[in-house]
Amino acid sequence: MNARTGHNFINGARSAKGHSRLHSFDAHTGEELPGFFIEATQEEVDAAARAAASAYQPYRTLAASRRADFLDAIADELDALGEAFITTVCRETALPVARIQGERARTSGQMRLFAKVLRRGDFFGARIDRALPDRQPLPRPDLRQYHIGIGPVAVFGASNFPLAFSTAGGDTAAALAAGCPVVFKAHPGHMATAEWVALAILRAAEQTHMPVGVFNMIYGGTVGAWLVQHPAIKAVGFTGSLKGGRALCDMAAARPEPIPVFAEMSSVNPVLLLPEALKARGSKVAAELGASVTQGAGQFCTKPGLVIALRSPEFDGFLKELTQLINAQPTQTMLNAGGLCNYADGLVHLHDHPHIHHRAGHPQEGGQAHPQLFEADVELLINHDELLQHEVFGPVVIVVAVNDRQQLEQALQGLQGQLTATLIADAADLDEFAELIPLLEMKAGRLLLNGYPTGVEVCDAMVHGGPYPATSDARGSSVGTLAINRFLRPICYQNYPDSLLPDALKDANPLNILRCVDGTSTYQAITRP
Amino acid sequence: MNARTGHNFINGARSAKGHSRLHSFDAHTGEELPGFFIEATQEEVDAAARAAASAYQPYRTLAASRRADFLDAIADELDALGEAFITTVCRETALPVARIQGERARTSGQMRLFAKVLRRGDFFGARIDRALPDRQPLPRPDLRQYHIGIGPVAVFGASNFPLAFSTAGGDTAAALAAGCPVVFKAHPGHMATAEWVALAILRAAEQTHMPVGVFNMIYGGTVGAWLVQHPAIKAVGFTGSLKGGRALCDMAAARPEPIPVFAEMSSVNPVLLLPEALKARGSKVAAELGASVTQGAGQFCTKPGLVIALRSPEFDGFLKELTQLINAQPTQTMLNAGGLCNYADGLVHLHDHPHIHHRAGHPQEGGQAHPQLFEADVELLINHDELLQHEVFGPVVIVVAVNDRQQLEQALQGLQGQLTATLIADAADLDEFAELIPLLEMKAGRLLLNGYPTGVEVCDAMVHGGPYPATSDARGSSVGTLAINRFLRPICYQNYPDSLLPDALKDANPLNILRCVDGTSTYQAITRP
Repeated sequence: MNARTGHNFINGARSAKGHSRLHSFDAHTGEELPGFFIEATQEEVDAAARAAASAYQPYRTLAASRRADFLDAIADELDALGEAFITTVCRETALPVARIQGERARTSGQMRLFAKVLRRGDFFGARIDRALPDRQPLPRPDLRQYHIGIGPVAVFGASNFPLAFSTAGGDTAAALAAGCPVVFKAHPGHMATAEWVALAILRAAEQTHMPVGVFNMIYGGTVGAWLVQHPAIKAVGFTGSLKGGRALCDMAAARPEPIPVFAEMSSVNPVLLLPEALKARGSKVAAELGASVTQGAGQFCTKPGLVIALRSPEFDGFLKELTQLINAQPTQTMLNAGGLCNYADGLVHLHDHPHIHHRAGHPQEGGQAHPQLFEADVELLINHDELLQHEVFGPVVIVVAVNDRQQLEQALQGLQGQLTATLIADAADLDEFAELIPLLEMKAGRLLLNGYPTGVEVCDAMVHGGPYPATSDARGSSVGTLAINRFLRPICYQNYPDSLLPDALKDANPLNILRCVDGTSTYQAITRP
Repeated sequence: MNARTGHNFINGARSAKGHSRLHSFDAHTGEELPGFFIEATQEEVDAAARAAASAYQPYRTLAASRRADFLDAIADELDALGEAFITTVCRETALPVARIQGERARTSGQMRLFAKVLRRGDFFGARIDRALPDRQPLPRPDLRQYHIGIGPVAVFGASNFPLAFSTAGGDTAAALAAGCPVVFKAHPGHMATAEWVALAILRAAEQTHMPVGVFNMIYGGTVGAWLVQHPAIKAVGFTGSLKGGRALCDMAAARPEPIPVFAEMSSVNPVLLLPEALKARGSKVAAELGASVTQGAGQFCTKPGLVIALRSPEFDGFLKELTQLINAQPTQTMLNAGGLCNYADGLVHLHDHPHIHHRAGHPQEGGQAHPQLFEADVELLINHDELLQHEVFGPVVIVVAVNDRQQLEQALQGLQGQLTATLIADAADLDEFAELIPLLEMKAGRLLLNGYPTGVEVCDAMVHGGPYPATSDARGSSVGTLAINRFLRPICYQNYPDSLLPDALKDANPLNILRCVDGTSTYQAITRP
């Protein structure tokens, strides 16, 4: 079980019924890595979904503290992975060792945070309306509500965070926390990494006596469609491209029983530079912004891809500095050959657009990504030009200058849904431009002031979501503890005796959680009339 | 403005650009009622959606207490409607005066409950993670999250609750509470009622100085499709048939920007009769169940349409009594001719099914509904027969006898998603059959014990939802305060100064709401590091 065989993970065992071999590559050299992975057959996808369905009932009915132990054990197993693991991740993704070590800490920290949520119990959303037997004209029955896991969840990880948004990433953590078994589709960009992590999850499952089938992982390409269409799957978590995410949404909506999909997809993360800030610290902003754009070869969902500012001498100065900075940036290795190819394609489209002008960056050629700066006419924003807001994954940023405040507002109105929207502003700017904030609220899931959107804190207050096409459902988040809500559904008990109620709803409040009792939040036990 | 003209309600004014006249009918006599309604043109649908979009920004940014005042004013206006209103509703729906008076109280009570939620502030979901400037390796920024309205909502009411699930019903109340302007499609079964109610809402909007366009109403048939496809509409609430709901879901999913739909659609609300309860009080159960099935001519989403029990002499006795009761029931007038026609059609299909047997009820003929009892072979449940679980709206119930406990579990496994699942059980039954409960939890949104599902309390703990096809999204509820969540989305502020934050997130907690601060629920003000 614990060997790295390249087989699928189904119902607590390894399975390799197919004949199609998949290979992983060294992201730096393009060289095929030793070993191979066996693509799952449709029969195996079915078996994985059914394994998750069988595990659902025993898993979701475990005490939340038991699920918390499981998540903590996953975190410990991830932290215990040695040098060979880190080397594998770095080879498959070309990401540096320090980044992967940091990302691992983030990933295990994320598991531990969800364990904390499970012990805290607020995710239950416990509500009790006690019986009113003497109410006229009709008595009120005893009604109690809490939340349970929605069912087996299919998770599709991202290439750019091989740990934090992948096999044991945020979607997996949220689903497992919610009480939902997971079928994970291994990302083709880091299949060896995925195997290490899946093995760590299964060791943790075994240590904490979780039901077999609580976590399954399948390799392959078309397997994703089979998975989303499988009747046992009740929700989908996805991080990736707009095209891929939308395809899954369409598939899920067309099922005999449609299921919810949370797909985090496409965002250009606009940054607004306001005049006083540019006056006071234009150079600093240029340096910080350049660093944010090129960090990790620009391969972040929250990379600032669009900068908007009012025309001014200070803006000209800023642009000149940014031009120099981008021209001086070294090339970077991208996550994989496909990513580099998409980046180059995206740049060709920008170069070809008659109203987008190249401002900085060396010709995109060879095996690495060259950072680039473009400038676009504001009319493209106002008139909803598709290309301008098409996310180009890589170290590229587009600047848009507006003539006046009215045009600035029109430009913001033209924005599609975004994960983030950032203001770079001094106090005087905020006095003058405060009314832009309600506009930005309509466009994005997270609003930043004098910071840069790369860097997504894992905490209670984070929102990593936003209106379409940033995500497929603005009501969710895929980072932070709110992410669990996507995989929970409410259930209400009417006139159930204490002995048959879940602990979260028992009279004595044995879990000592905060509950809404007759409209008031309280930790107190209750008595029945 | 306040005249009953039959015109559409758009942007605070009346509009009648179309030429198609729609008529309302006396539900008892089929007679055309005086006056007519003008079907909205596509241009008017567009204008209504744009009016809602214009109102969105000013409306959502109002203090929640202002929106609460608006909802309270709607409640007062509804309560103040006089005899002529009640007469109109009764004529259009054939529902008795006492029922309509009760339903009006429920509808205004619902508005007031949402007003309470707005003042209570838990719907904000306020979370604050304070900055950790000294954290290593990186400082944590100040992050604060709350929820805002998702945008203009299209609401489609139901025929069977002309007040509580219609113009000023639960979906409208939830959307308006969330900060979302509404475009309501008037139900063709009670267009005059809808006009009275819309006028009441507009009077309340005027009294409380709400933005023009906060509530709009359009008449017509195809107008619904235009509305759901309109880019300004950001979510849909629907109560009605599976066919109609699914069509809206498909439409919403196929938009360039897909939007969430909460459709409450189809449920047969299984009732399980356990042996000891049948022994102890079979006659009482037969009488209560018969009353629940035939109440309001069986025109409730939660009408118990399917009864499951173990074969036994007591069950035979119960069935005999239920047969007599159903045969003795008077006929009832349904909500409209279309409803009666659908009921008769549904009965024909049941009669024609080779494994469903007619047990009681007089031949369905004439202008009223005859209550009916059928018995079906359990294999239909086990083998997922479509007809058995197809909701027939009207006073009909199907009984299924199972041979043993194993077959009972198989039958429950075969159930589709339901709004409710009921156990009629004595203490000894619960000892023996407790493990059925986790099974029922997987199937329904509300679990009842020794009660009947008709009667849906409007409160914090209610869930009026459930897995497909009961609803299109098991994560929501269309009754009770949880219903607001369907129309809210989270937003996060990073490093915003106090002055620019919404009141819900300000340091001093000026709204005095419960917030999650650094992982702990508290009413306390906070200080920044």
